Amino acid sequence: MARINANYNKLAAGYLFPEIARRTAAFSDANPGVNVMRLGIGDTTEPLTDVVIAGLHAGVDKLSKSDSYSGYGDGEGDQDLREAIAAKYADYGVTFDETEVFVSDGAKSDSANISSIFSHDAVIAVQDPAYPVYVDSNVISGRTGEAVEGQYEGLVYMPCTEDNDFFPEPPRQKVDLIYLCVPNNPTGAVCSKEQLKSFVDYAIDNKAVIFYDAAYAPYITDTSLPRTIFEIEGAKSCAIEINSFSKDNGFTGVRLGWSVVPQDLVVEDSESGKLNTMWRRRQNTFFNGSSNIVQRGAFASLSPEGRKLSQEMVGYYMVNARTIKSGLESIGITVFGGSNAPYLWMKTPNGLSSWDFFDKLLTETHVVGTPGSGFGPSGEGYFRLSAFGNEADIATAVESIKSNLQI
Amino acid sequence: MARINANYNKLAAGYLFPEIARRTAAFSDANPGVNVMRLGIGDTTEPLTDVVIAGLHAGVDKLSKSDSYSGYGDGEGDQDLREAIAAKYADYGVTFDETEVFVSDGAKSDSANISSIFSHDAVIAVQDPAYPVYVDSNVISGRTGEAVEGQYEGLVYMPCTEDNDFFPEPPRQKVDLIYLCVPNNPTGAVCSKEQLKSFVDYAIDNKAVIFYDAAYAPYITDTSLPRTIFEIEGAKSCAIEINSFSKDNGFTGVRLGWSVVPQDLVVEDSESGKLNTMWRRRQNTFFNGSSNIVQRGAFASLSPEGRKLSQEMVGYYMVNARTIKSGLESIGITVFGGSNAPYLWMKTPNGLSSWDFFDKLLTETHVVGTPGSGFGPSGEGYFRLSAFGNEADIATAVESIKSNLQI
Repeated sequence: MARINANYNKLAAGYLFPEIARRTAAFSDANPGVNVMRLGIGDTTEPLTDVVIAGLHAGVDKLSKSDSYSGYGDGEGDQDLREAIAAKYADYGVTFDETEVFVSDGAKSDSANISSIFSHDAVIAVQDPAYPVYVDSNVISGRTGEAVEGQYEGLVYMPCTEDNDFFPEPPRQKVDLIYLCVPNNPTGAVCSKEQLKSFVDYAIDNKAVIFYDAAYAPYITDTSLPRTIFEIEGAKSCAIEINSFSKDNGFTGVRLGWSVVPQDLVVEDSESGKLNTMWRRRQNTFFNGSSNIVQRGAFASLSPEGRKLSQEMVGYYMVNARTIKSGLESIGITVFGGSNAPYLWMKTPNGLSSWDFFDKLLTETHVVGTPGSGFGPSGEGYFRLSAFGNEADIATAVESIKSNLQI
Repeated sequence: MARINANYNKLAAGYLFPEIARRTAAFSDANPGVNVMRLGIGDTTEPLTDVVIAGLHAGVDKLSKSDSYSGYGDGEGDQDLREAIAAKYADYGVTFDETEVFVSDGAKSDSANISSIFSHDAVIAVQDPAYPVYVDSNVISGRTGEAVEGQYEGLVYMPCTEDNDFFPEPPRQKVDLIYLCVPNNPTGAVCSKEQLKSFVDYAIDNKAVIFYDAAYAPYITDTSLPRTIFEIEGAKSCAIEINSFSKDNGFTGVRLGWSVVPQDLVVEDSESGKLNTMWRRRQNTFFNGSSNIVQRGAFASLSPEGRKLSQEMVGYYMVNARTIKSGLESIGITVFGGSNAPYLWMKTPNGLSSWDFFDKLLTETHVVGTPGSGFGPSGEGYFRLSAFGNEADIATAVESIKSNLQI
């Protein structure tokens, strides 16, 4: 008799965003004609750059002729794209070759799948709050117990609070796998090189592996901050970096990301513990490579002109971040993040719970945001706003909050 | 201390196709200037149809303007595409709604991931020979023991041999999950409605679930044969169908597939055993939807004109299948498949092992094929040839075999 993977029953609630969609739809149904403004999901809104559009069209045209058509590509991605990604790290003084780069259909897939090459009894540490995929993928794989008061048994939570500027110290106990997201989703927090070094040192001392989600790294404007974990000495022996074309090139729906798995990254001190080989095997069994068309668009985005336009796109959204931040502060709300990140992490006024504030914001101002508690227990009492949106729409939403929110 | 998923060490050998690539490269290095002809990997070679090219370009253009740009789509795929896929089943007298269709990046991903929503102790049955992904994904997830004499302990093999026309009867013992691929990769075998009904009956009696890989269904020309498992009464309560745009639209590198998970498919007689809900949750956690550009190309391929051109593409490759079959038969080789499938399954001459014949064919005729033993123990002594290729190239390869193979 077929039976289900019962770990699915442990999942504490519906995935955060479907619940937001449900409440938003209920509000719209009850208030026809009201224009709901979304500062919720971190989804890009601005069109692809001209360079990327040209690259994508060329990718399509290539498939229209016999002599340039191609079928299955390398499961790891086109070689020239992997070389161009590797070359990008030279900006940060980091050297890789293309065998260390794995192109995928996005950072979400890699984040969700990366722990599958590790042992089932691995002890996992996550920032709290965190992107729900890190937690849910490990709940489903059976690496946690039940959810008790908002925390899964067996999972090590690293609280990110006002006290530590929303970036934790390494765990006191021994853990095997650590998820870090910098700049952080949802808090918008960044870390210094010294803070990141403390995690690299911990990982080396404890033979742990760090999964470093750097999908928002293009939003770092303070050049003293690390843009990749591989700026930290020793990281090649203990870290995998996950990254994306989504947020600086508008690829959220186009789908493309990559991971860097260094050749030097070996666990169990044995040949079979070489994680570059293992991830290659994993990807070649469960995945068949990213779309060849999409890869041509991504490749174009890495040209000098493409990179200039990507930076302009980042700059566009960062104007929004400043608009939101200054608008909220002008009515006395405390806001974190948003300086080196597209996310703003606001304290709910009057100690409201995250979901109560969600309902209040929607009802009074018609603005949708994301309840902080959806990202973990330490997110309770906070609320995420996203700078992804059209400039005029964002300005209107902020004006509505300033005029209509009853604090 | 981080440790690897030790199930990876059970994998009997490198993935089949990398080994073929290795031997082919070694031959080419040793014989510079020799033109190696590939009848190996089942990879399409002909350009996309004009309708698909137009759909893809339109998909790109949509992303170039603010008012038509879109970011994250539904994790399950665009609604109009799901509706068009569901509508296609009406040709076979089968009715679905779009909530039962899940668009993905390809049949390989779905084949590899589908068992993850089931319990870890599920007993798995596979056709022997079979597409390696069915087996390897379950080895990696720990559902098998070690490989002993070419068979994994704990896995139920259903031999497909000359005696049963390469399609098995249902297992005698109880199993929980059954992988079927019809038309078959690698043997090119098909099954009758009666044969398929025996599996559906078995699944219903034993509360098992069938994963039915129909990626090659467009190659069925005999209209008495089932084109989808859902033509069989009762299949909606026991089967998931996995399908693809790869082989009738040349999407091997473009990447798009789908699975049908019926709303009626429930295990454990409980609400939490509703597989449509579970697969939705799985996809929304581990996957973020297929590329919006690629989906526009696939949608175009389902228009009346698009479907006509897809059929022409299938017809093109089927000419190749006939060329290979008649060519080999003319020199006394026994060949199966290739009538309702793009694969031909030949018996190696003089009882050679599959890999010995691989080397012989490459050395004497410069043709690369796929050793049958790479697909499972019952594939030993057989060899797969693929009809995917340019017509002139295939004719040249067949002539070389006819002229140069020393039998």
